[in-house]
Amino acid sequence: MCLVTGEAVIDVEQASAGRFPADPLTVFEEWDAFRSWAAALEAAVVQTPVGPDGSVSPTPRQVFAIGLNYRDHAEEAGLAAPESPSVFTKFATSLTGPDTQLRLPGGRVDWEAELVVVMGRRAEHVAAGDAWSYVAGLTVGQDYSERDVQSVGPVPQFSLGKSFPGFAPTGPVLVTADEFADPDDLAIECLVNGESVQKSRTSSMIFPVPELIARLSAVCPLLPGDLIFTGTPSGVGHARTPQRYLRPGDEVLTRIEGIGQLRQTCVAA
Amino acid sequence: MCLVTGEAVIDVEQASAGRFPADPLTVFEEWDAFRSWAAALEAAVVQTPVGPDGSVSPTPRQVFAIGLNYRDHAEEAGLAAPESPSVFTKFATSLTGPDTQLRLPGGRVDWEAELVVVMGRRAEHVAAGDAWSYVAGLTVGQDYSERDVQSVGPVPQFSLGKSFPGFAPTGPVLVTADEFADPDDLAIECLVNGESVQKSRTSSMIFPVPELIARLSAVCPLLPGDLIFTGTPSGVGHARTPQRYLRPGDEVLTRIEGIGQLRQTCVAA
Repeated sequence: MCLVTGEAVIDVEQASAGRFPADPLTVFEEWDAFRSWAAALEAAVVQTPVGPDGSVSPTPRQVFAIGLNYRDHAEEAGLAAPESPSVFTKFATSLTGPDTQLRLPGGRVDWEAELVVVMGRRAEHVAAGDAWSYVAGLTVGQDYSERDVQSVGPVPQFSLGKSFPGFAPTGPVLVTADEFADPDDLAIECLVNGESVQKSRTSSMIFPVPELIARLSAVCPLLPGDLIFTGTPSGVGHARTPQRYLRPGDEVLTRIEGIGQLRQTCVAA
Repeated sequence: MCLVTGEAVIDVEQASAGRFPADPLTVFEEWDAFRSWAAALEAAVVQTPVGPDGSVSPTPRQVFAIGLNYRDHAEEAGLAAPESPSVFTKFATSLTGPDTQLRLPGGRVDWEAELVVVMGRRAEHVAAGDAWSYVAGLTVGQDYSERDVQSVGPVPQFSLGKSFPGFAPTGPVLVTADEFADPDDLAIECLVNGESVQKSRTSSMIFPVPELIARLSAVCPLLPGDLIFTGTPSGVGHARTPQRYLRPGDEVLTRIEGIGQLRQTCVAA
């Protein structure tokens, strides 16, 4: 795990003389102490390039993902805007780092640009007004989705169809909420081969980040290092005319204002 | 973690002089070596009473749960029998041990007796014919389900409505597959206040254990310690006339032949 300041990248384990270990999950479990320690270094963002795959939080105990959280995406999916967040998971083996080859397993693989929340404190029955204080920071995510698996059977297969290996890149860094003028209103964009296919603002979410934390934590305690994929705006390939899916050679860039970008190059499995 | 023989309960960490630690996940990661070591003790089953809650596998990296995997339950739910397993998760904070108080969060809490598989080897693209060799063992599980949360919104909320704290008890022990005459055909039963409400055999699954492992591992690598809740037979409270949900004071017993039973006493939250 590293800290990024204006001038340098600082290895956390080394700089803290072992007080904070290389394992990001352990650091998330001590997030308040870590923040106090890091404040002296004037670091704005946290990088976690360690771990098997460079994920921001490589071993979360829970990964929550929200479907249909932008009204225009619910419309393009032909579904009603939910009155409560639609929750599924991306299984942990789908997590990977920010700059990867995306192995296409066949079927119809689609893009979904998403803001991802990383939890920094255990949250149980948290009010929306207090929710930001439970967040370690924000990062960029992609909720890659294979539409054949997702569509099979009598109920949607959100969890399985979105969990092929590498289907959950996050990164490139974790930015604490206090670094943003308004953490609830960030530009989000997805480009395929340089063409902008999704472009929105996170202020268009039906359930903004504090509301998601309130509603999830009313059921499940959220643990340090847990991830929340917060849903995608309109412009997915499945809803285009003609429909468009990823092919070997395609390059997908996913950007969020003030955080950075992911880059996947698609390859055949 | 303990081993149970005909005569004794053996503490694994102590008996192995630290070769195998108290943490069950570490033991699952070395399952083949552990089995070889344990064979000398003639142990039939494994207990994992350690961990925060006594779960058989208290810190799995992935929890898979299968909906509608018995034809009579799909029928009573008013849904078509799936042509492919319907997969959701039970979030990790719902895991607990075999003999607990079940805190009813309000709403309509229902029972679902289930056979639970614990993985003992990493499984990726495994053929059904080889699948049993990737299994550490079998245990009893309950997939407690709150039907209000489960039903809200445009898509079923299987994952969230089934993940309140304590909604995923497992235990009381883990039994290796070689202990059963036929691990694909076990009597399963749920009793509420002594009345049998679910009674079936695991041979009635639409997708038996080997088929589930084959289909899941074709998408997600399965990791040692991962759980698979394999679905419930008919007889849930939601499908009864009149409908019946759990109330404070109710006692739920869940039994599977050759493994043992879970016992939850319901209390108000």
